[in-house]
Parts: sequence; C-alpha cells; structure tokens
Amino acid sequence: MNLAADTVKTLEWTPEGIVLIDQRLLPHREEYRLCRTYLEVAEAIQTMVVRGAPAIGVAAAMGVALGIQASKTRDLNTLQTEFDQICNTLAATRPTAVNLFWAIRRMKKVFDDLLAQGAEIHDIQQRLQEEALAIQREDIEANKAMGQHGASLVPGGKTVMTVCNAGTLATAGYGTALGVIRSAVCLGKNIDVIALETRPFLQGARLTAWELQKDSIPTTLITDNMAGYFLHSGRIGCVVVGADRIAANGDVANKIGTYTVAVLAKENGVPFYVAAPLSTIDLSIPSGEAIPIEQRPETEVTEIQGVRIAPAGVAVHNPAFDVTPHVYVSAIITERGIATAPYEECLRRLKEK
Amino acid sequence: MNLAADTVKTLEWTPEGIVLIDQRLLPHREEYRLCRTYLEVAEAIQTMVVRGAPAIGVAAAMGVALGIQASKTRDLNTLQTEFDQICNTLAATRPTAVNLFWAIRRMKKVFDDLLAQGAEIHDIQQRLQEEALAIQREDIEANKAMGQHGASLVPGGKTVMTVCNAGTLATAGYGTALGVIRSAVCLGKNIDVIALETRPFLQGARLTAWELQKDSIPTTLITDNMAGYFLHSGRIGCVVVGADRIAANGDVANKIGTYTVAVLAKENGVPFYVAAPLSTIDLSIPSGEAIPIEQRPETEVTEIQGVRIAPAGVAVHNPAFDVTPHVYVSAIITERGIATAPYEECLRRLKEK
Repeated sequence: MNLAADTVKTLEWTPEGIVLIDQRLLPHREEYRLCRTYLEVAEAIQTMVVRGAPAIGVAAAMGVALGIQASKTRDLNTLQTEFDQICNTLAATRPTAVNLFWAIRRMKKVFDDLLAQGAEIHDIQQRLQEEALAIQREDIEANKAMGQHGASLVPGGKTVMTVCNAGTLATAGYGTALGVIRSAVCLGKNIDVIALETRPFLQGARLTAWELQKDSIPTTLITDNMAGYFLHSGRIGCVVVGADRIAANGDVANKIGTYTVAVLAKENGVPFYVAAPLSTIDLSIPSGEAIPIEQRPETEVTEIQGVRIAPAGVAVHNPAFDVTPHVYVSAIITERGIATAPYEECLRRLKEK
Repeated sequence: MNLAADTVKTLEWTPEGIVLIDQRLLPHREEYRLCRTYLEVAEAIQTMVVRGAPAIGVAAAMGVALGIQASKTRDLNTLQTEFDQICNTLAATRPTAVNLFWAIRRMKKVFDDLLAQGAEIHDIQQRLQEEALAIQREDIEANKAMGQHGASLVPGGKTVMTVCNAGTLATAGYGTALGVIRSAVCLGKNIDVIALETRPFLQGARLTAWELQKDSIPTTLITDNMAGYFLHSGRIGCVVVGADRIAANGDVANKIGTYTVAVLAKENGVPFYVAAPLSTIDLSIPSGEAIPIEQRPETEVTEIQGVRIAPAGVAVHNPAFDVTPHVYVSAIITERGIATAPYEECLRRLKEK
C-alpha cells in the first residue's frame, strides 16, 4: 500500500529553513512554502498554512530551533532574551491546540538545561535542532503506535466517519484518526470512510478526501449537516476523530462540529473514538470548560475560497473548536494504549507510564 | 416594521407568465425570471430557482394553470390528456415536499369537477387560474396564522436558531418558521436569530440572512457544524424550522441537517418547533421512513458557486432532506393551532377541523 504518509511531507527541516506544504491551496495546488525565519513559521501557523495540533507542535519546535540558529549573539543573557521572544511569538499564534505549548515547553527545557550546564551557543543551537527533529520523529512513531492500538476498535465491513483532517497533513506523518484508519486497512479490514467537509476551512473536503484518495482508501465526502443522516442509517461502524486538547477528565477540544457528531453517535449507538498523542492531553486543565476556544475571522464563514456566500454586513460567529464532554467519548486512543472511562485515572496513568 | 414579506415577491402571476425571484442568485443579485410555459416552471422548480415546500406548491399550481391556458384545443378529451401531461411533468420535478403533490391534487379536483359539470374550456382555464391564486393567497394567510400561534412559544430575551430558509422566499410570503420569528418580533419580544448556513445550497447564508436583514431582525450566521456549540451554550431559547413533509405520526422531513439539530436541541433541553401549513402534513404516510428522500447532484457538494472545493473523482452523497423522528419534536405549529404529542391523534384532528 502506497501511503500518503510516505509521499507527502507535511513539514521538513532543510538547510534553507522549514518547508511546509501550503494546506490552504490543497487539493488544487500542491505547493511548498519555505519559512526562512521563525516569524515566517509563526505566520504560517496563524494563517493555517500548517494546521492540525501535532503538526503545529512540530512546526513550533522547528520554529524555535530556526529562530535560535539565526542569533548572532555571543552573550548568553541576550540569547535568553531572544529565546523568550521567539517562544512567546510562536505561543501567541493559536490558543487551543496544546501541542503548541507542549512543544515550546519541551524546547525550553532543553534550552534551560543546556544553559545551566554552561553549554556553548553553538551547541545550544545544534541541540535545539536535534530536539525539534526528535519531536517530529516521535510524532510519526506515536501515530503508528496509535494506529496499531486503535485498528482493533474499528469494525470491519462498515464505514468509519471522520471530522476535519487528522491525517498526515495534521501531523508529522501518518496521522492520528487517519492513522487508525490506515492501520485498520493495513490489517485487511474491509472499511470505507465518510469524510465531513468541515466548514468553514473545509479540511475534510480539501485535505482528508485528498489524502485518502492518495492511499486508495474509498472515501465519500458529505456536508457537515449530513452527519446525523448517516449516523442514523446504520452504515457507520464508528467515528474516529483527532483532538486539539484533552482535559484531565477526558473532555475533548477538537475542530468545530466534533461535539455535534459525538452527540449524534451516542444517540445512534455508534462508538465515538478520539485518537491523540499524549502531548495533546493537558492534565493541568481539569475539564473542557477551561480550554480556550479560538475565534477566527468572519470571512472564513462569509467567503469560500474568495467567493462571497452571504449578504454584506451580516453578523458572524466563527469558533474554530468545540468541546465534547467525556460522556460522549467511547475511548481515547494514545500511543501507549487505549484510555476508557473513568478518564481522570486512566489518562493520568498512561501519561505517567 | 418593514417586512421582507411585503417587499419581496417570491412568485407572481402576471399576464406574461409566472415571475419568480431567482433564488440561486441571491443575495448577490435580485433577479426575476419569467416562466412563460409550464415546462419553464417545472425546470425552475427542479433547478431550485424557486424552492421551499409551500412555494413549490404555489409554483406548481400556477404551472398547471399556465399550462392549461396555453392549450389551443377545443376537445375535452385532448384537454384531459394535456392536463395529465402537465400535472405529471410538474409532479416529477422533486419528490420530497408534499405540497407539490397536494397543490397538483387540488388543481386536479377543480379540473375534474368542472369537467363533470360540463364546463367550457375557457371557464376551466379561468377557474384554474383562480384556484392557483387562491392557493397563493391562502398560503400567506396560513403563514400569518402560524405566526400568531407560534409566537407565544418563542422565549423572549433569547436567540432563535433556524435551519435552511423557511421564510418569505420558501412560501407565497411571510414564511413558516421565519413567520413565527416575525410574529414574535412584532409582539415586541426581544429576540435575535442564529441562521445555519445550510450546505450544500446555502439557503441559510444566502436567503435567511438576506431576508432577516431586510426586516432588521438581528441575525448571526454560523456554519452548520457550529449548531451543537451554540445549543450547548445556553443562548438558544428555541429552534424553529419549516418542513417538507410531515408523516401521520409527526415525523418531519425537512432540509438535510434538521435531524442533527433536533437531536442536539433535545440533548441540551432546547425546545424544537416545526412550523408548517396543514398542506405539508401527509396523513397517507404512517411514519418518516416512508418519505422519499431526494438525492441531488454531486456538484452541489463539490462546488460552491462554481468554485471546486474537493479533489476530482471523490465520491459524494447528497441527500437533500432528512427525517426527524417525532420524539425530538416539541410541537408542530400549523395555521389551525399547535400540535403536540401524541401527534397521530392531534394532527388528524387539526387536519380534519
């Protein structure tokens, strides 16, 4: 099987800078964008050139490494100031996906440790690059492990429904929710996929359909408001989605519309699974109510690829995420195994394993 | 209050033919289309120049009258053949909204009675025109009565959520669901509206937002997958939608996505109301399972106003309607009063009043 994970590179560290596939242009144009500075990386995260919680984490880590490599200082205090500036800028790009903050914190720890050890600036620059590449590598490994754990949950002979894009393009590679689907297909399970188009940014129509098409996994595209119709039809074996942040109690922040699908899945007796690396689990947040929800520009709703679809002057809301209370979550698939209720205990155990 | 119902004419009978506002071009262009033949009316219904169950009913009735006026025959047998041909063509345009078949049946009854009475062809032509105009007039009256009955159900100080467009543009005027909202506003209730954009055809973004803006009723546009987020927020006082066909047991076929909203409303303790004239209630259908669901072209999903949003070759489903089982329906608002569970009995009583 020729997996998109093998042929598409979401992010790549190169000597010239970080190369990102421009996800705003897919599926029409497969264009790569070179970010030569950490500010360009920050802008790419904010404008969704790169998106998906794990991919944002990797991009931020690479951004930190890139920013610090550009430093010309020989003074450690100045370096510290520059480092903080880089981290703060990258952290301010998007509020919901915790992987962003997790990755920056991990880079910070390496930086602080090296500083405490009296390392030289050149070594610090080198080690931060290595750490960013380790985060990238580990993300792919985590996704493959998630795939192995999660594949057993996917019923054969049925359709898997997924929201947004939690695939290769949302991660360093292979994907979280789409990784589970890929692994189920690799196990020989006879499944197909229903992808919700996922307005307003259309990650399902533009990215998931494109990715799964590359893998020859049969995929049907529907609009978001058809979710209930198909969940009620008996055709759906399970729902698998990714996550942007999971609270200690198992509440899941994910792309807007996920809560809607979760409620409908429960109402129709369809299992609802969340696939996410442990870096997405934020034990510092007790419940979903405390997760900050990003509000994005109105034009994402009133325009589709530059074409206006609503009357001028109409008021708009555009929350980019919603929170699915844990009671709707059948299981959370992580790289260290599958968590089920009571999540509080189970997630803590997996995270501290 | 300057109501859109007073300024916009969804359908108009003129000496040249039937004038329809082209709903595919709104809100960008307010263009009117003259249908000079019944075939042009059939095409306008099928391509959604005119849409909305009650409006389709009126258009079909006018189409029948127009078709029969064009007849040059002096032979009643030939007229009967032509009449059947006209009715069959109009009936074949769209399968779900029962108002289409109801209106054609009503025209047929007038035709059959006149034929039985030995009426002259000219009189038949004149009487069919009068009947079509009566259907149009009665639809507006029914909507205003529904508005009066339904307004009492709308909680003040809260937001009303609505799906698709069940307004002036979906009817002969005033609207069903939007009629209830208009009447609540006229009563002085302090409400605002959340309109779901309603993919794939975007009736909410293009038509409802436009109509309510004309009436200065504060309206916020959201994408369909945000419905759960807002229903969970405590902001929504009630949901009001229209209907395309209501079965004897109270199951409601309406625009795709209605079922999804109904389930989420129930889950969050928000009342879910359906506003529809008695012509939408089909007592011959025992439950929603027997309602035919129209499947529409794939390009409605893969393209938005001519702009492609999905990779070429992706499979698509496009059911235009779904069925909301009656257990999710808090009440059905008709022109003769409000039906509540058990619907079987209540709907029959209202219909036979």
